[in-house]
Amino acid sequence: MSGVPIEEQLLLPRLLSYASRCHGEIEVVARDTSGEICRQTYAQTELRARRLASSLIARGYGHGTKLAVLAWNTIRYFELFYSVPGIGAALHTVNPRLFIDQIDYIINDACDSVLFFDGATLPIVEQIAERLTNVKTFVAMGARGEFAEAKIPNVVLYEELVEEGDASYEWPEFDEKSAAVICYTSGTTGAPKGVTYTHRSLMLSSLIGSANMPGSPHGERQVLLSLAPMFHANAWNFPFMGPLTGSKVVFPGRDMRPESLYELIEAEAVTGAAGVPSIWRIIVDWLDCNGKRFSTMRQAFSAGSPLPTDLMKALTERYGLDVSQSWGMTEAPNASSGALKPEHNKLPSDAKLTYREKAGREIFGMRLRIVDDQGHELARDGRAVGHLRVRGLWTPHTYINYPDRAALDADGWLVTGDVATIDSDGYVQIVDRAKDVIKSGGEWISSVELERIAMLHPDVERAAVIAVDDERWGERPMLIVTLHAAAKADAQQIIEFMRPRIARWWAPDTVKIVDAIPTTATGKINKVALRKRFT
Amino acid sequence: MSGVPIEEQLLLPRLLSYASRCHGEIEVVARDTSGEICRQTYAQTELRARRLASSLIARGYGHGTKLAVLAWNTIRYFELFYSVPGIGAALHTVNPRLFIDQIDYIINDACDSVLFFDGATLPIVEQIAERLTNVKTFVAMGARGEFAEAKIPNVVLYEELVEEGDASYEWPEFDEKSAAVICYTSGTTGAPKGVTYTHRSLMLSSLIGSANMPGSPHGERQVLLSLAPMFHANAWNFPFMGPLTGSKVVFPGRDMRPESLYELIEAEAVTGAAGVPSIWRIIVDWLDCNGKRFSTMRQAFSAGSPLPTDLMKALTERYGLDVSQSWGMTEAPNASSGALKPEHNKLPSDAKLTYREKAGREIFGMRLRIVDDQGHELARDGRAVGHLRVRGLWTPHTYINYPDRAALDADGWLVTGDVATIDSDGYVQIVDRAKDVIKSGGEWISSVELERIAMLHPDVERAAVIAVDDERWGERPMLIVTLHAAAKADAQQIIEFMRPRIARWWAPDTVKIVDAIPTTATGKINKVALRKRFT
Repeated sequence: MSGVPIEEQLLLPRLLSYASRCHGEIEVVARDTSGEICRQTYAQTELRARRLASSLIARGYGHGTKLAVLAWNTIRYFELFYSVPGIGAALHTVNPRLFIDQIDYIINDACDSVLFFDGATLPIVEQIAERLTNVKTFVAMGARGEFAEAKIPNVVLYEELVEEGDASYEWPEFDEKSAAVICYTSGTTGAPKGVTYTHRSLMLSSLIGSANMPGSPHGERQVLLSLAPMFHANAWNFPFMGPLTGSKVVFPGRDMRPESLYELIEAEAVTGAAGVPSIWRIIVDWLDCNGKRFSTMRQAFSAGSPLPTDLMKALTERYGLDVSQSWGMTEAPNASSGALKPEHNKLPSDAKLTYREKAGREIFGMRLRIVDDQGHELARDGRAVGHLRVRGLWTPHTYINYPDRAALDADGWLVTGDVATIDSDGYVQIVDRAKDVIKSGGEWISSVELERIAMLHPDVERAAVIAVDDERWGERPMLIVTLHAAAKADAQQIIEFMRPRIARWWAPDTVKIVDAIPTTATGKINKVALRKRFT
Repeated sequence: MSGVPIEEQLLLPRLLSYASRCHGEIEVVARDTSGEICRQTYAQTELRARRLASSLIARGYGHGTKLAVLAWNTIRYFELFYSVPGIGAALHTVNPRLFIDQIDYIINDACDSVLFFDGATLPIVEQIAERLTNVKTFVAMGARGEFAEAKIPNVVLYEELVEEGDASYEWPEFDEKSAAVICYTSGTTGAPKGVTYTHRSLMLSSLIGSANMPGSPHGERQVLLSLAPMFHANAWNFPFMGPLTGSKVVFPGRDMRPESLYELIEAEAVTGAAGVPSIWRIIVDWLDCNGKRFSTMRQAFSAGSPLPTDLMKALTERYGLDVSQSWGMTEAPNASSGALKPEHNKLPSDAKLTYREKAGREIFGMRLRIVDDQGHELARDGRAVGHLRVRGLWTPHTYINYPDRAALDADGWLVTGDVATIDSDGYVQIVDRAKDVIKSGGEWISSVELERIAMLHPDVERAAVIAVDDERWGERPMLIVTLHAAAKADAQQIIEFMRPRIARWWAPDTVKIVDAIPTTATGKINKVALRKRFT
């Protein structure tokens, strides 16, 4: 049919070009791995990204190639999100906290031909360089001096690539369904599996996510700090939402000490920050100890796991932040909106807590539903508990090199592994991981809820609940906790504290007090390790 | 490549299904053509839209067919935006204010096979029914009584189609690049030409437009009144942005009398309304005369032509509205964002006026640029004046039945026919229509600016400037004005008022005071008619 629109493609570099044209003076700020705070405008960033892109093309990398990056959140990493996908190649964002064997496994699995790294990840690269079968070029992101003694063949300096580059390079047009970023799952339940984000999926999740960011009337002129690493679902799209909305974005580099983060927040007048509960815990503890307050920060975004109630209260009541939680996974990042409905946002603090403690609500473009064991959809009444399924504009259907291993159920919905309720407003409440839920006497006990209740006890620092086999009931809950320094509660006191707050048959039969609870590379409780140790 | 996302399509019914699931209790409200105020929730609306869709399918209409609607803004019209595109057909939104010959011409030109109409447009349909060569079914939107005496063959009642329909009908999946809506240009400069909006283009402009709507923190729970008709670029996407953001949307039906609009605004607690300057003029005049104020309305959106300064001041200073202007055309609707940058939004009223008087700024997804007569891009400095070109996610490359008549320049950019400046923040200022600009002694004189200045005179009601041939200068401006009732200014007084406010050589050589200035079907000044009469 004639008269149809020109089919312009949703390609990531359009975001940076737009920012350069219309928000050219707004800055990207990051602490370098050397500790120095670096800054450059979107206009400068776009120019550098184009130079680097043209250098990569000149060296033979282009459409269909895959380039890995093993690094911490810096401006150069930010640039890579444009330079690499911008030429039609895919950027594989590798988690430096993975076991070293997993790192070379996934770089080989993805067939990456370039590896970008920084001063902090150099020691890892030195160990694995020889085992990387496809990597032809190692690119060092930092000053020459940092890499003078590097025991790696073929090291090229990132800055040399930028200098060599052609500033008049123009972003090419290609299919928006091309791979843009590759991210591997953390592999808590098996070998890490590679998920591909296309230009289209990242653009749509950023466009829709920006419209749903709470507290940013037009999205513009916020100052957003990402406490989430770039390799963790693209720092939750901050590298894309910043240029789109004209917000300044700030990255902490490798230095995640609370005093450094606080200094960055105050110096850059950060208005909102996003991170997992464990980083919020570290920040709150430090603020408590040092009697500090935020001058400009008003928003906290949390995801990855539920924010414990005491931490939620500390952030909202003690530090005056508007806290929103959302839900996502590597296979479905930013899949719920943390913004409360306006009528819930107006509620008094206590009533509002009910909604704040949920994992956000259905966002346009990602449909959520819960199903029973047979796959039948359950009611959206906030009470029915079922397996959470998601389907939408940014969910994948397979993993890299696992063509037959679809992550989808029979109806084409992504299996999340979470158990949840959904209410009539679309709020989702994660009840448990399907594999962590305790099946006792035919009923489900939520390990997440037991952990939340245990952590309400003032002496309990962290809590984990696992299922142990039981002849009579099938499974029964075991509670494992760490205590705050100098705390003295014993197992019996903790159980007595919990009893009035839970159903009688939910009470853990055993409480173990331990020195540390093991975590995964992404900071989640490692229940596989706990089960090995205690059952 | 494996691991890529499922390719879900951007299809319009997803918006209504989302609203039904997550904002099910929010209402669509409209005055029916009978004058009655009707209301139904998004949940009810989605159900009715599905029933109607299944009825249309049952009657043989489906993918690739075209269905016309000639009607005023009612709930049924709102439903058509989902029922018709939802089955893969295109909805042709016809302007009842066109000359009657143009109406049957464009319905035939588009090959429409169904015509939806209402009680108000019945007389037009009775006149043209026999000349509509492809229309097989006429669907009456209203109660049976209204159409008892209709002199039209094959009339079916809309409500019967809904009743017949299947509530379990599920929206089908198809290519998002399918035609969804067809809109003809107003034809001021020749025969009307048909522009096609696809599902993709409407979804992207609505997704991005919602994020940029000023004053709606999350977009949610606003009450939006469309003073723009549905056939005017889909009422500026209100039928799509309402369900997307969970805002209540309100439509005035055929009754555009200011007292009726005011009653609707107050009764429905409208928070923002969108319309062309002429409707804002009617509302302000009525408020002034009747000493009324808005209780809930805070936002005014204006587009179509520049808002005169006195009207802008009345809306902002006298009636406390936040006014934003944006720019668009049938071929590029909603092509700029009316939201001011936050730093400009904070300015005191007078300084803010400078930005409010511009036509919005570049919105992500639609690139704007100005070029000289040779097509070279000019500076974005707010001073250079050039031909405005636009290119982006929702611009067409041809018109229906005009495959060779591309509306694009040699570089693939849409020729807008406007002359403009763009500044470094992306704000666009429309200087003139290219065909209306006066070329005097090698320099350009802006008819738009002269009209604006003339209307600052307290006696001048409306002003139009046209070029008249001049032996010495090529062209010279002629000013044509209407005066307010009982105003007494003469031509010389008006020129003397303007002189200190404009460059010396801009002063009109002639001023004509007339009883009325002719307008087009979309309410714009008909300069073709003025030129015929005065030159």
